Amino acid sequence: MHDCIFCTIAAGKAPASIVYQDNACIAFLDIQPVNLGHLLVIPNAHATYLADLDEATGGHLFRVAQRLANSLRRSGLPCEGVNLFLADGEAAMQEVLHVHLHVFPRFAGDGFGLRFGPNYLNKPERAVLDSAADQIRRALDAAPTKP
Amino acid sequence: MHDCIFCTIAAGKAPASIVYQDNACIAFLDIQPVNLGHLLVIPNAHATYLADLDEATGGHLFRVAQRLANSLRRSGLPCEGVNLFLADGEAAMQEVLHVHLHVFPRFAGDGFGLRFGPNYLNKPERAVLDSAADQIRRALDAAPTKP
Repeated sequence: MHDCIFCTIAAGKAPASIVYQDNACIAFLDIQPVNLGHLLVIPNAHATYLADLDEATGGHLFRVAQRLANSLRRSGLPCEGVNLFLADGEAAMQEVLHVHLHVFPRFAGDGFGLRFGPNYLNKPERAVLDSAADQIRRALDAAPTKP
Repeated sequence: MHDCIFCTIAAGKAPASIVYQDNACIAFLDIQPVNLGHLLVIPNAHATYLADLDEATGGHLFRVAQRLANSLRRSGLPCEGVNLFLADGEAAMQEVLHVHLHVFPRFAGDGFGLRFGPNYLNKPERAVLDSAADQIRRALDAAPTKP
C-alpha cells in the first residue's frame, strides 16, 4: 500500500494534474495520455481489483466519469467523442494495481483503436451464446454482492 | 427509437442471450464477442449518448458491470481478467446509438489489445498537463449535472 503511486496521489503526496476530488475519489490526468485530456478516476481508498471495490464507490466512479466526459466535450481540448476503459487484472492489461477508470477524449484520425484476436469475426451460434449466458447467470446468482 | 435494436431487446422483442435484467438495465451477450462471455449492459430506457443518461442510471450500470465481472471470473468460461469499455460518440467508435457498457473476459494470448496513435509515447510536460486540467476543471465547474 505504501508503494502504491495512486494512493500517494490521492493523499496529495505526489505531483498530479488534478481535475476533481471528493471524499470517495480523485480524477487527474494520465501522464501518458492517449490524447491530451486523458483522465483517470480512482477511489481514494486503495482497491487493487474491481472485486476489492464496494459497489457504492464503483457507481460513484462512473457518475464522476460521466461528468468528466461531458466536461471534456466542453473543455476546448480536441474531443469529438469519449471512451471509458477499465482494465481489471494483469491479463486484461491492468498496469497500476489500484482500480482506475480511464476517461479519454477522442477525435477523428487520432490513431487510437482496438485490436482483435483471430476469432473476432466468427459470430458464435445462438446456442453457444445461450450456454455461455447460462454459465454466467449461474455464477451471478451464486456470487456474494458487496453493496 | 422504434428502430433501436437495443430498445427492442430491452423490451423482450428481439432474441438475446440475457444474463440479467432489472427495472433500470439489462445485460446480454454481444453477438460478436471479443471473447466468449462478452456482455453488454444497457439502460432499458433509450439514451443515445452518455450525456442523455441520468447519473443514477449510469452508476447503476457500473455496479451491475462489477457484479458481472465477478461472475465472469467464476463462470467457468476462460477469464483471467476483465475489461470494461464504453464508446460515447461515433468518433469514439460507438456503433449502436443506445448507451452500452461492454464487459468482456480476457485471458493471456487472446489477441485483444489497444492500438495507439503516433504521439502516444511522447509524455507531455507537466505544464501542458496542468493547463489541460485547468480547461477541464473550468468546464466541469460550469457544467450542469443530471443527477
